[in-house]
Amino acid sequence: MAAFGLYCFFWTAKGAVSLSTDLQSLIERVRAGEPRALARVITAVEDRVPEATPLLRELFPYTGKARVIGLTGAPGSGKSTLVDQLARAYRHEQRTVGIVAVDPTSPYTGGAILGDRIRMLGHHGDSGIYIRSMATRGYLGGLAATTADVATVLDAAGKDIILVETVGVGQDEVDIVRLADVTIVILVPGMGDDVQTIKAGIMEIADIFVINKSDREGAERVEREIRAMQSLALRSDKWTPTIVKTVAVDGVGVPELVDAIGEYEEFLQKQDLVLKKKTESWRQRLVEMLRESLLERVLREQMGDGAVARYAAEVAERRRDPYALVEEIVNKVGK
Amino acid sequence: MAAFGLYCFFWTAKGAVSLSTDLQSLIERVRAGEPRALARVITAVEDRVPEATPLLRELFPYTGKARVIGLTGAPGSGKSTLVDQLARAYRHEQRTVGIVAVDPTSPYTGGAILGDRIRMLGHHGDSGIYIRSMATRGYLGGLAATTADVATVLDAAGKDIILVETVGVGQDEVDIVRLADVTIVILVPGMGDDVQTIKAGIMEIADIFVINKSDREGAERVEREIRAMQSLALRSDKWTPTIVKTVAVDGVGVPELVDAIGEYEEFLQKQDLVLKKKTESWRQRLVEMLRESLLERVLREQMGDGAVARYAAEVAERRRDPYALVEEIVNKVGK
Repeated sequence: MAAFGLYCFFWTAKGAVSLSTDLQSLIERVRAGEPRALARVITAVEDRVPEATPLLRELFPYTGKARVIGLTGAPGSGKSTLVDQLARAYRHEQRTVGIVAVDPTSPYTGGAILGDRIRMLGHHGDSGIYIRSMATRGYLGGLAATTADVATVLDAAGKDIILVETVGVGQDEVDIVRLADVTIVILVPGMGDDVQTIKAGIMEIADIFVINKSDREGAERVEREIRAMQSLALRSDKWTPTIVKTVAVDGVGVPELVDAIGEYEEFLQKQDLVLKKKTESWRQRLVEMLRESLLERVLREQMGDGAVARYAAEVAERRRDPYALVEEIVNKVGK
Repeated sequence: MAAFGLYCFFWTAKGAVSLSTDLQSLIERVRAGEPRALARVITAVEDRVPEATPLLRELFPYTGKARVIGLTGAPGSGKSTLVDQLARAYRHEQRTVGIVAVDPTSPYTGGAILGDRIRMLGHHGDSGIYIRSMATRGYLGGLAATTADVATVLDAAGKDIILVETVGVGQDEVDIVRLADVTIVILVPGMGDDVQTIKAGIMEIADIFVINKSDREGAERVEREIRAMQSLALRSDKWTPTIVKTVAVDGVGVPELVDAIGEYEEFLQKQDLVLKKKTESWRQRLVEMLRESLLERVLREQMGDGAVARYAAEVAERRRDPYALVEEIVNKVGK
């Protein structure tokens, strides 16, 4: 978190003043994929500084080319290793890669620049790859919305592939991978909780299942359990999620995973589902954006400094009914 | 999920029509703690039917007496067993208890009435206890807000103690326990992920730590790790979270936990922090309620059937800039 504070300071001290005049140059540097410009713009997006929206608006026309691949799996499922292996495979095909790591259990979390740097070392200063860790708490506008905006920035920066990794528990995480073009759920044999977790919401979002650490005992059982669940839950698009077995630390199964991703994308294209999927994802994002912007407007226009705290005290002391209060404020907007 | 659907049907088929005329009688039945009335009102709150707000508004004046205790722990930490033991202890003191179980990994989840009934069996049809499981996904207004409203209903129903149990990963879960008067974080020796998870946000919300299954090897190590973290993070209220060791299946440590809860509440009272804590919790709830109500109003007034989907399609086809679109809609409110 300290790193975050430092970053914010950098922004206010050196960034905000020159932003409006240098906006175009900053946009150009982002489009060129310059790491420092990327870091600066992503921080602005994360902190929701007032300049974030104009920046995103300027960048939007340059987006839409990247493929966003979401990967989710419990802590210890080897998610980061798998993501690094995938990145390596795509770099081998000369494609540029952006990684967004959202993981509350990771030592990299908390906007940890240091952590990103350590992880970057594994890629030998390859300029075709950019890694960004995100804290999982306290984002204005929510984690999923912020992650989507960060992916937008990386898309505008010309990254061909954007890998978004997240821990697969909690609505936030489900929302994040839901925004991806392809969603991969990672399981590991012998982690009893996994299949349980899948039952409650992740099952339906997985386009591909990866059984990582598949050299461990129990891999067959996990596969059987996935198949059993698949026979119960038919997807509306008729796709039967592929199951790929990997041993990420050794790179085993990674080419097969790349193929599986390609096959799913081909399926989407053949069935004319690409636009449909993107529309569905934008439907959710627009509602989120709307929700946040509306709140911002009302807090700005109707709730002066400390108004929320005053209202909260009145409700806590039971001098006010919160349900009536909220209705009153909402009805006053624009009047 | 099927159970949920069934419930909704019940509501629309038999409930909604007679609600306005029978509102007062329903409120009376809730206040008397009648399980069927409770189930019906809680379902209305979960589904956010239009009648939910008037119901909550009518119930609000009768709330404020219950103590809400939030318990969070990873799957397998023995959370439900501990909650059941606590419930038993409080019932022994002749206090009435409400349990709200929010757990994506629980077989009870999904509004599973059957699951609640199975769990109720452990309490031998004791009418002084009411158990309700909640699904963790898809609530309009968010999981934390819905959980808080369900607790409001149980409070109005005269439950002395409301135990809210949740899996401790994800912002949603943190938000839920944040609304409690007392927050308990459950750890288990030998579950490597736990302490990592705590580091990222749960540490600061725990008023009491429980080391469950403390007869296992490693309990001392967990305690040492908690102490080490405590020495780094001093709370603004100067409270040092108590550490209680339990073996929930055998009831070991449960009286000590009840005592620890009592001590923390005494501390809050002595330091005049009760109202401060409730105010902080209402501050968050009011903002959440505002956010949701604003969105509802705009969707109702400005976005006719399918408008969001049409906009989403335009954005997906890149015929519209989402950032400009949202600004436009927000500025139009009330004009």
